[in-house]
Amino acid sequence: MKIINKVVIIPDSFKGTMSTYEVADIIKNSVLNYYPDCETICIPIADGGEGSTDCFLNAIGGNKVTKVVANPFFEDIEVYYGLTENDKTAIIEMACCAGLPLAENRLNPAITTTYGVGQLIIDALDKGCKKIILGLGGSSTNDCGCGLASAVGVKFYDKDNKEFIPTGGTLKDICSINIKNIDSRIKNTEIIAMCDVKNPLYGESGASYVFARQKGADDNMLKELDNGLKHIADVISNDLKIDVHSLSGGGAAGGMGAGVYAFLGANLKSGIETVLDMVNFDNLIQNADLVFTGEGKFDIQSLGGKVIDGISNRAKKQNVPVIVISGDVNDEEIKSSYNSGVSAVFPINRVAKNFKDIKMYSKDYLKYTVDNIMRILSL
Amino acid sequence: MKIINKVVIIPDSFKGTMSTYEVADIIKNSVLNYYPDCETICIPIADGGEGSTDCFLNAIGGNKVTKVVANPFFEDIEVYYGLTENDKTAIIEMACCAGLPLAENRLNPAITTTYGVGQLIIDALDKGCKKIILGLGGSSTNDCGCGLASAVGVKFYDKDNKEFIPTGGTLKDICSINIKNIDSRIKNTEIIAMCDVKNPLYGESGASYVFARQKGADDNMLKELDNGLKHIADVISNDLKIDVHSLSGGGAAGGMGAGVYAFLGANLKSGIETVLDMVNFDNLIQNADLVFTGEGKFDIQSLGGKVIDGISNRAKKQNVPVIVISGDVNDEEIKSSYNSGVSAVFPINRVAKNFKDIKMYSKDYLKYTVDNIMRILSL
Repeated sequence: MKIINKVVIIPDSFKGTMSTYEVADIIKNSVLNYYPDCETICIPIADGGEGSTDCFLNAIGGNKVTKVVANPFFEDIEVYYGLTENDKTAIIEMACCAGLPLAENRLNPAITTTYGVGQLIIDALDKGCKKIILGLGGSSTNDCGCGLASAVGVKFYDKDNKEFIPTGGTLKDICSINIKNIDSRIKNTEIIAMCDVKNPLYGESGASYVFARQKGADDNMLKELDNGLKHIADVISNDLKIDVHSLSGGGAAGGMGAGVYAFLGANLKSGIETVLDMVNFDNLIQNADLVFTGEGKFDIQSLGGKVIDGISNRAKKQNVPVIVISGDVNDEEIKSSYNSGVSAVFPINRVAKNFKDIKMYSKDYLKYTVDNIMRILSL
Repeated sequence: MKIINKVVIIPDSFKGTMSTYEVADIIKNSVLNYYPDCETICIPIADGGEGSTDCFLNAIGGNKVTKVVANPFFEDIEVYYGLTENDKTAIIEMACCAGLPLAENRLNPAITTTYGVGQLIIDALDKGCKKIILGLGGSSTNDCGCGLASAVGVKFYDKDNKEFIPTGGTLKDICSINIKNIDSRIKNTEIIAMCDVKNPLYGESGASYVFARQKGADDNMLKELDNGLKHIADVISNDLKIDVHSLSGGGAAGGMGAGVYAFLGANLKSGIETVLDMVNFDNLIQNADLVFTGEGKFDIQSLGGKVIDGISNRAKKQNVPVIVISGDVNDEEIKSSYNSGVSAVFPINRVAKNFKDIKMYSKDYLKYTVDNIMRILSL
């Protein structure tokens, strides 16, 4: 019987079947079934998209702050962000006021704005925050974060030197940018943008061509949006002497990655690294006997800075074994993960049937799978 | 790291994908990958059907004896049986001369015979065998073993007191049976009939209604065959004072279960118990750290005297953990097996896809599954 006194459980959601909370809970119960006295630490995972604020508050505690700001169409909407670390850190999920679900029935990335996100930043600064975690992801916008920037004091001018708030469709009209009047507290604030895509701002794999279709763009608009993003990169380069032309992650959230980098001096960071830092993962796994993580599919997409990769790399440094539970696994593709801290991988499929026919049994299958892993560990 | 010095590997075949040899080999290689100095004992499993002789000879050593006997249509065919235990034990697989593949293109359980099986028994007796293991299964016949019986000296008479060799279609013509002239060596010979079905000789769940359709019977013939089996049970009861009317397993191999029980005094025994006895399983697992077994589907059909059940029950008595690897698993149905010696169960499915789409990857999937089990054990 392997001695197991402390287990850290930090799974991603299994998309389409189970939330990070549900997965963690099932694993925890199974561990306690075999090791009733084991200390279990469950960490829900947020990737910056919808639900990130809640995940963070759940993981590290904190409070919600409610605020009325602009929705994607400059209309009022009541949303919340999180305050944590003695109210010195704000967790702001851009999707809360600029997300895709908010644009339902009138999807149009040419006119939607991230202005509300900037208003939330100001509110957080007003409350004394010294650190802001911005979750990028799930956006309805393509404004390169110009709405956000405008809300914090960045000025955009057209060819007539008239100030305006650019959106996706009017990025091309920007002639100059002035950041002199940006809220002065920003330069003393640590801003981390959680961003799990590596797409550049524009081009074939940029924000518009890859993501704008689902936000409502047709072929013509895609081209127009992409041109706008390329144009603002040029203006940023000219006026701010900052190069976002090929910034990795610049294309996140409709170009907001590039925007917060250029306008706010934000640090673009992967979701999992942000989470692991925020929850003090390195401390949490000290003396742990085991880490459980997992996700819906464990394949080549899971490598290179994603959840399992981030976790296993850190666990490896402390020699804590990592067991991965996944919906599907592509063993060939994830071979290298065994050298990066992953100890073993178990998919949850109990029968050879198509996903649509068994997805309703996911919770049972996860339970049975972990149960049998624990059976082996407790041999 | 769990100490593992000795592992016994005794899997059933995974029907449609891997033989018992292939499964055992993959498991063995994986074990040795993590525990290079581990003693591994592989036992191929025979259930009495096709391949049983080879399995036995592989597991415990011995020689093949070639012999020309009657095929299902009383034509000559060269077949072989096995001699083992210093040539004192014969392994005879009824399917070798009376099997379904031999009747291809002329399937007809009304006329096929088990006569050749009796000839093999005589040959084994001639060679001095004191024990005969008869594999029942995969038959093309419905003759209640009357062909076999005739070959060893049992006499069947019709209403005109004329001797004949009954087949499925003429069982109804038997008026009396005389076993006086049976080969006298038989009563001093231990005869074990391996039989993995519990069907009775006749009736709804009897040999004909359950198995004769695949042997070529239509609705009318099914009824006729079933009546014949009921009739011979009555004659056996009258003339031999032996009751096979509801004998469990009597319906095996077209009624050969009942036939060898009544005519030869054979002991009907489950395939796995026969194998486990023959290979001295109880001795082999002494000091073993682990037993691996498995089969294509682990569900309610696997319980009640089948492979995994037989193995785990014996392993439990010596407190040797049993890990089951299966194609599919029905966790609800096999719950009770955890109380009968099964320690843990792992299906090999790595992705949620239908069997037909993934069966070609079975060997890889098995390898990956065992590999990850070994990874956990060696943590």
